Amino acid sequence: MDEHRYTLLCDFYELTMCNGYFKTGLAKTITYFDVFYRKVPDGGGFAIAAGLDQVIDYIENLRFTAEDIEFLRSKEVFTQEYLDYLADFKFTGDVYAVPEGTPVFPNEPILTVRAPAVEAQILETFILLTINHQSLIATKANRIVRAAKGRAVIEFGARRAHGPSAAVLGARAAYLAGCVGTSCVLADKEFGVPSSGTMAHSWVQIFADEYEAFRSYCQMYPDNATLLVDTYNVLKSGVPNAIRAFKEVLLPQGITKCGIRLDSGDMAYLSRKARQMLDEAGLPQCKIVVSSSLDEHLINDLIAQGACIDAFGVGERLITAKSDPVFGGVYKLCAIEDEEGQVIPKIKLSENVTKINNPHFKKVYRLFENSSGKAVADQICLYDEVLDSSQPLEIFDPDETWKRKTISNFTAKELLIPIFKAGKKVYQSPSIQEIKAYCLQQIDLLWDEVKRFENPHNYYVDLSQKLWDTKQDMIENRRQGNL
Amino acid sequence: MDEHRYTLLCDFYELTMCNGYFKTGLAKTITYFDVFYRKVPDGGGFAIAAGLDQVIDYIENLRFTAEDIEFLRSKEVFTQEYLDYLADFKFTGDVYAVPEGTPVFPNEPILTVRAPAVEAQILETFILLTINHQSLIATKANRIVRAAKGRAVIEFGARRAHGPSAAVLGARAAYLAGCVGTSCVLADKEFGVPSSGTMAHSWVQIFADEYEAFRSYCQMYPDNATLLVDTYNVLKSGVPNAIRAFKEVLLPQGITKCGIRLDSGDMAYLSRKARQMLDEAGLPQCKIVVSSSLDEHLINDLIAQGACIDAFGVGERLITAKSDPVFGGVYKLCAIEDEEGQVIPKIKLSENVTKINNPHFKKVYRLFENSSGKAVADQICLYDEVLDSSQPLEIFDPDETWKRKTISNFTAKELLIPIFKAGKKVYQSPSIQEIKAYCLQQIDLLWDEVKRFENPHNYYVDLSQKLWDTKQDMIENRRQGNL
Repeated sequence: MDEHRYTLLCDFYELTMCNGYFKTGLAKTITYFDVFYRKVPDGGGFAIAAGLDQVIDYIENLRFTAEDIEFLRSKEVFTQEYLDYLADFKFTGDVYAVPEGTPVFPNEPILTVRAPAVEAQILETFILLTINHQSLIATKANRIVRAAKGRAVIEFGARRAHGPSAAVLGARAAYLAGCVGTSCVLADKEFGVPSSGTMAHSWVQIFADEYEAFRSYCQMYPDNATLLVDTYNVLKSGVPNAIRAFKEVLLPQGITKCGIRLDSGDMAYLSRKARQMLDEAGLPQCKIVVSSSLDEHLINDLIAQGACIDAFGVGERLITAKSDPVFGGVYKLCAIEDEEGQVIPKIKLSENVTKINNPHFKKVYRLFENSSGKAVADQICLYDEVLDSSQPLEIFDPDETWKRKTISNFTAKELLIPIFKAGKKVYQSPSIQEIKAYCLQQIDLLWDEVKRFENPHNYYVDLSQKLWDTKQDMIENRRQGNL
Repeated sequence: MDEHRYTLLCDFYELTMCNGYFKTGLAKTITYFDVFYRKVPDGGGFAIAAGLDQVIDYIENLRFTAEDIEFLRSKEVFTQEYLDYLADFKFTGDVYAVPEGTPVFPNEPILTVRAPAVEAQILETFILLTINHQSLIATKANRIVRAAKGRAVIEFGARRAHGPSAAVLGARAAYLAGCVGTSCVLADKEFGVPSSGTMAHSWVQIFADEYEAFRSYCQMYPDNATLLVDTYNVLKSGVPNAIRAFKEVLLPQGITKCGIRLDSGDMAYLSRKARQMLDEAGLPQCKIVVSSSLDEHLINDLIAQGACIDAFGVGERLITAKSDPVFGGVYKLCAIEDEEGQVIPKIKLSENVTKINNPHFKKVYRLFENSSGKAVADQICLYDEVLDSSQPLEIFDPDETWKRKTISNFTAKELLIPIFKAGKKVYQSPSIQEIKAYCLQQIDLLWDEVKRFENPHNYYVDLSQKLWDTKQDMIENRRQGNL
């Protein structure tokens, strides 16, 4: 990411509000903003938080250049005082966030900013678009990876991504959530996502003949020959020509590792037929890779139908999260501090009671059952509450409060980790491989019922009694005071 | 766009193929690649081509840095000869494209590259992702703008975009296709898309009281006060407080231009009630802006139900093209040149006959009926055909060839314009405002039947007899030769 490049990637209203905070004396008021989301995409049971590393880069590089200031001045709505402030802008606040790769659930904070109003407000758009985008793709990629049941899934979607950063950052998110690699070279160079690829139809077409194209390729890349067999006719031309090339070029060199790729047609039928032809030709080690508008549902079906597929190249439906391409994370004011530094909770009402935000500065505990190690619930508490895991804990549904459950013999782990303190980064980002390992391990700690694609079990995300009481009081006061 | 930054934004197979072209002596073979798409998103009647300006920037800045070369060397699959070549890489080919903002139809080339194989192959991913992304968003935005029937549509989606460039380039595409502006400041600075915005819920919440928040805002921005009225209760608190602030702050200054924004709840009901309250308060000029998961269908419905809405802020469903987020443009080899410079057409077969590409180097004419000025059909011809518009022209459906129609008294206009010649840019990009004006004017030249949202008339895209014959001969030869 290029320094300072994204400072103006904000919504205009953030600047007009900040300019207004100056005039009204609110600029230095300490505010708390939560990032949370309300609905798991595709009706799934959980999402995967991703994008924190790019948020960190952004905050560290947040500076308004002289050119930015001149541009803003040309809008003729900002005061000189505010423009002077922006020229020296530096983030001085605190950020807490769940580590990338953590499974997260609706309505719990996944990132919290504590900063003067004039700083916190400006971060809104970039934080949201980054967390929303990468969490969306990580969540979708993980569904596809789980559908593949141990077979490799490679991210192939750059050409259908929504612009350059959707391709590169999307490949990053897909990898940390379980894909084995990407076709995108820049994602490899920038983020260490392993890139690979062999040939397009144009390689086959540019030669006078398909066999010649295959033979040349095997000669060039004997250690990595995956031949695309559907340019003319898979079973009558592609597979026979591939077999001939493998036998004539690779086998004499003692190389048995090779592959074919199917990119069109009926994958179940063609892969079974191709498998049979390859086996009969003495090429049982030849892998079959398929690609062509795949997603978790089609992969599920193909496997159920006995398709003989070793790896999936997944493109447009992963990189755009086609079936549900919006991750609806929001950035909501949940508290301010008064002049004595006391935290005053803030709330936004809504006609739909489940859309009212959880007020106050909060922490989130994930509760793991000691007997199985599995996560059983998340408990959202006020920032100064300490959960005592030595005692049984009664949790209850925040909407349907008669639904109660007592948990004992559990371990509580705080999810939100300090990332910035007083503007200084206090967090050492793990490597992408570490994030990937952590992500898969955390998903292993969820019950299978939460991982079902359709109608999964709703994981419990509950409020502490103190937080629940605070929220109810505020709703009541607000209604009485304003209506 | 930063120089050289996107050179490695390619698929790995492009590099392995190019490395192979060197070894097999094909590197300098002149190739022709077409960009075309097969299906209009959302079942619409046409798409809008967009993204050419970013393709031009990319091609002009295509250079491999020493760091890029070292990265590729570390992959241990590329020859020294190829890496040396890349170190001096420069695009030397020709590019033809339809101007941005042009309505385009399935299966016709919207961009054609003529270049040595080793150059043309590398452009594939970036060209596709750029054209696919911006055409997708332009097409979707234009549907929404048409649904709004003259009311302003503002692009509000940055926070739900698929990463930074999806926000900024998406705002660009939305603007050229008819939106009046964006919330995204960087899209304004980089591309001149007018940005605007007023307040979020956090502005209202940070004050002790809603009225105070509104009054302060009107005092700060008397010329541009659009107040967000749904933080607590639209009709019982938001609108009355807004009216009071307008009356106490704006009207005494003689200012009647003002607005309110609704961001939740039933927009038809709330907007009608709010309109009535505003009118009764003597604020007939107060505009009502709404935002909240809008798209062309909801806007259609709201207008049909008599909602009193002056402007729409459209976010996630526009910036992600939620209902159909993939624009499936492809980049297909359609010809090569032999050593004498003769163009040899190339074809890729498919089990689905409508998916077989149109071979050969081609041009596209759009035929306008002289009596109405309207576009009646596109005719794809071989590159050396010249369409004589002084004679009646019989066109026919390329799949159902018995469907024929004779057109006379028409004007033919070539769609593909030279953009690069021998590596040199020969095209002067219009300004974004010029593109926008051109786009809207070109859409005006389509029949209403093509513009219907559901089941639109299929605009005729036909092949010249020569091209049709060439294609049929090739399919026949290919089948006989390979099967």
